[in-house]
Amino acid sequence: MSSYNAPIRDMQFVMQELAGLEAVSALPGCEDASADLVDAVLEEANKFASGVIAPLNWTGDQEGATWVNGEVRTATGWKEAYKQFAEAGWTALACEPEFGGQGLPKLVSTAVMEMWKSANMAFSLCPMLTNGAIESIKLRGTDEQKAQYLHKMVSGEWTGTMNLTEPSAGSDLAAVRTRAVPEGDGTYKIFGQKIFITYGEHDMTDNIIHLVLARLPDAPEGVKGISLFVVPKFLLNADGTPGERNDVHCVSIEHKLGIHASPTAVLAFGDKGGAIGTLVGEANRGLEYMFIMMNEARFAVGMEGLALSERAYQLALAYAKDRIQGTEAGVRGGPKVSIIHHADVRRMLMSMKSQIEAQRALAYVVGAATDMAHHHPDEAVRAQNQAFMDLMIPVVKGWLTESSIEITSTGVQVHGGMGFIEETGAAQHFRDARITAIYEGTTAIQANDLIGRKIARESGLTIKGVIGEMRKVEAQLAEASGDEFAAIRKSLSSGVTALEEAVAYIVATYGGDIKAASVGSVPFLKLLGIVAGGWQMGRAALVSARRLAEGSGDASFYKAKITTARFYADHVLSQAPGLAYSVVNGAAGALALEEDQF
Amino acid sequence: MSSYNAPIRDMQFVMQELAGLEAVSALPGCEDASADLVDAVLEEANKFASGVIAPLNWTGDQEGATWVNGEVRTATGWKEAYKQFAEAGWTALACEPEFGGQGLPKLVSTAVMEMWKSANMAFSLCPMLTNGAIESIKLRGTDEQKAQYLHKMVSGEWTGTMNLTEPSAGSDLAAVRTRAVPEGDGTYKIFGQKIFITYGEHDMTDNIIHLVLARLPDAPEGVKGISLFVVPKFLLNADGTPGERNDVHCVSIEHKLGIHASPTAVLAFGDKGGAIGTLVGEANRGLEYMFIMMNEARFAVGMEGLALSERAYQLALAYAKDRIQGTEAGVRGGPKVSIIHHADVRRMLMSMKSQIEAQRALAYVVGAATDMAHHHPDEAVRAQNQAFMDLMIPVVKGWLTESSIEITSTGVQVHGGMGFIEETGAAQHFRDARITAIYEGTTAIQANDLIGRKIARESGLTIKGVIGEMRKVEAQLAEASGDEFAAIRKSLSSGVTALEEAVAYIVATYGGDIKAASVGSVPFLKLLGIVAGGWQMGRAALVSARRLAEGSGDASFYKAKITTARFYADHVLSQAPGLAYSVVNGAAGALALEEDQF
Repeated sequence: MSSYNAPIRDMQFVMQELAGLEAVSALPGCEDASADLVDAVLEEANKFASGVIAPLNWTGDQEGATWVNGEVRTATGWKEAYKQFAEAGWTALACEPEFGGQGLPKLVSTAVMEMWKSANMAFSLCPMLTNGAIESIKLRGTDEQKAQYLHKMVSGEWTGTMNLTEPSAGSDLAAVRTRAVPEGDGTYKIFGQKIFITYGEHDMTDNIIHLVLARLPDAPEGVKGISLFVVPKFLLNADGTPGERNDVHCVSIEHKLGIHASPTAVLAFGDKGGAIGTLVGEANRGLEYMFIMMNEARFAVGMEGLALSERAYQLALAYAKDRIQGTEAGVRGGPKVSIIHHADVRRMLMSMKSQIEAQRALAYVVGAATDMAHHHPDEAVRAQNQAFMDLMIPVVKGWLTESSIEITSTGVQVHGGMGFIEETGAAQHFRDARITAIYEGTTAIQANDLIGRKIARESGLTIKGVIGEMRKVEAQLAEASGDEFAAIRKSLSSGVTALEEAVAYIVATYGGDIKAASVGSVPFLKLLGIVAGGWQMGRAALVSARRLAEGSGDASFYKAKITTARFYADHVLSQAPGLAYSVVNGAAGALALEEDQF
Repeated sequence: MSSYNAPIRDMQFVMQELAGLEAVSALPGCEDASADLVDAVLEEANKFASGVIAPLNWTGDQEGATWVNGEVRTATGWKEAYKQFAEAGWTALACEPEFGGQGLPKLVSTAVMEMWKSANMAFSLCPMLTNGAIESIKLRGTDEQKAQYLHKMVSGEWTGTMNLTEPSAGSDLAAVRTRAVPEGDGTYKIFGQKIFITYGEHDMTDNIIHLVLARLPDAPEGVKGISLFVVPKFLLNADGTPGERNDVHCVSIEHKLGIHASPTAVLAFGDKGGAIGTLVGEANRGLEYMFIMMNEARFAVGMEGLALSERAYQLALAYAKDRIQGTEAGVRGGPKVSIIHHADVRRMLMSMKSQIEAQRALAYVVGAATDMAHHHPDEAVRAQNQAFMDLMIPVVKGWLTESSIEITSTGVQVHGGMGFIEETGAAQHFRDARITAIYEGTTAIQANDLIGRKIARESGLTIKGVIGEMRKVEAQLAEASGDEFAAIRKSLSSGVTALEEAVAYIVATYGGDIKAASVGSVPFLKLLGIVAGGWQMGRAALVSARRLAEGSGDASFYKAKITTARFYADHVLSQAPGLAYSVVNGAAGALALEEDQF
């Protein structure tokens, strides 16, 4: 099967040259994150990712998780790998020292997270969901809940889940029907069914801590009547060890297109008298608490898109260098060559590579903004970074995941007929990628959040600031010499203009005609992603030119970066005006048909 | 599971109003194809497609074909359905009456083929490959071969296969290594291994007729040293019945991403002394013969893309009308609505619908041109239609299949989380669609053929003629009144201009810098597809306006057609300038990296 090796050189470039690792490690609480330490962390993480979990990716997919009488058996090797993962301290990397975490900055944990997700996305989902549960308890839990659960979850001894979805409550959580009945002793009995619960049941740890959205008896209808509860699989004994089995049971697991090794559980709460839980924070504020964590979860799913694209690229590249087929174009009867010599294979590889690099740059820059938003001493700087991060998280989630479907598909295509054969491994990345644009909020949900809460509500204040930054880069590109910079500047300039037009349309339209604005929401999200990626690639090209001029570092790497930025400008950024056209003109045609005319 | 119902109304519209069914049925040899007969054929085919083979689509996917000791068992119900299919005469529909066929025009068989492929693509591959084998024998076989095989294959009693690919000979058939040794009695012994042989082994008929590419001992290297042989699974007795088992055996079948019910065989020829075959046509001209059939096969695979998109659309539409989630945009606390009310769901459905209609129109128009090219009494008309068809077949193959990956993916997205669950059925269409852009020549192979043989070689003569036709439609659109026509005209105009620029670049560059031209080949293919689709949608909108003005026919249908054309213009055709930009500017960035810079 395919191997994985983390793109550490590009990760370092992005962290140091684009995302400002130095500034991040100067933040209060982040001082430990020196360049040396970060390099060591990346190296160790790569060893674990490539050596331990990457080899389980394909076998786990083929074997899948299995359900027998309410118990879920994970794939061969899964349990042992998870144990190693926890023991090596990887579950605690980004967690707060107060509960046993290592407190590394988001920028650093982002790169490490990319590795887990590239190496084995199905595996990575378990710690990712656990992190969400940790955050909930940390931010809104009682002292008792924190004492009971946090250390064990941070250490990886127990895992966590997020129980939101029900058969009739997917994107619309206002429809949640699971009930919580107060017992009068501070506990609640939970009754209802939750679906799509990632790692809702498994055999890797001796307890699972479920975070569950449910309604109290007197709760108002809709989103303001939902509360959040902690419901452990095993109730805790007085000494904190797992005791009696709680009344939450896995009724079945799903048969899915991808991530076969990640058990997606249907959980029944209260079939035998009521699952016992405790309230997190205040009653009826559960959805609000979920939204606090949503940024983190959405960012992580965006990283899944990037990570799968990277893995698919590595596999396709290795095949393209290895596979001999045909002769150089126009040379009949010449020597046979590896397919990387063929123009369209190069185009495909460059398309993958350039999008991945643009997306990594954007995501890590957003990761660094998260650190700034949390730790910077200046409140104004915190607020500015928070606004940038809030704006960009739906883009990281939506754009990186939608692109990953296309990029992993290109990975299949590079393999020709072999790409369609499951043993090759390319098909798995394509199947796995498909979920990323759906869960933690579909692309439409992201786009809705983007144009509504993040843009229209503030009349485009933050995005106009970002556009100003893009224009600055455009001006710097205009000063750089050579065809490559001229090409990059030209596409960035058209792209930013297109973005401006689209923003003006959204701001002008949203209040008066939300449906018309919403038709353009997903094309707008892609447009912003593509242009923001071009902005970062423009920055990357400028830094590279500077390093080349200084004669410092790896010249081949910097030259490749400039070429890759140019490819991105010619082939990806060039789509921006067409997307803006759809945003601005696309509503009437989309909304005119009656239902029976479809 | 999902049901299928053929879009007969749109098929009729396209056949009658855009593809010229009346003119086709006036051709010599096509007189039987009256509008009434065609309607009856469509209705019967729909009954069979929806009633017999559509219900086997999902069960066949889940069960798959199975290999045991060299024998392949097709999925439950497959054998019986195939028998019914043959007995009802469907295998003979487009075949020549001389060999028991019904000789219906290509335009009609195209619509029927769409139904088989929508209903059950894995099933449809068996008669499709058989047709290819029939064509080979019909066009280049000896009288004896024709007498031995054709009636039984036309009747569906036996099936056929095409054996091209070997482990080292995929896109590059010059590398074929299978050997054919003359026995001196007019037969040959065949030795070698072929892979990816669709229905290379199965249990549905009592013989399988393999068409096999192989090299004679004295054959020149490369493409001019490959000959074509007929190699039956069972040698024929003197009375024409299957006799002794031939030395061709199924070593294994592939474990694939999709089309699980279609057995993809590895065939070993000659492991037990040599498989006996006879030569088709002249020695060393096998590849040339393959190319004769290639148009047919590539067109058919293009139709698979369209057919899967249609099936995915029907499933997504039904779900969108049925699934209740959320309230109307901006109405918090209002009544819950079906998701077709949500703007982005509408956008997704319109995107599917509009592309499908544009693609159906283009494909059927090409189908009608095939009839004209074969049957028109005027040689100049035949030649013109042949040139149009030759130009457009790589577009039908490449554009419809690449789009189907995206459209079936959109179908998954409309379902939200349910789309990722295999039982829903949306994921199967997405998996099945992935192969269509690969087999019968990858998209790069199509694009290569398009820019080289079909455009550069004749300095764009044919495509410039087509662009002239597009400009005529643009002029007619300018005379029509209303916003919708203004929008359609505007996008068509920019699209055609973009196409002209790209054609000029290809013609100017191909001869001197084939690699630079080739970088743009796939974007160019998509560009031509999108603009040609817009041309057909423009024609459809004009016809619809005429019918509305006349007050004839179904006003709701015609109004929807105009709206759909407008959506296509705003959301699909609007991508054309960006694609042309990549064609014209995209080479330098794609070709600059050294291999070790990737």
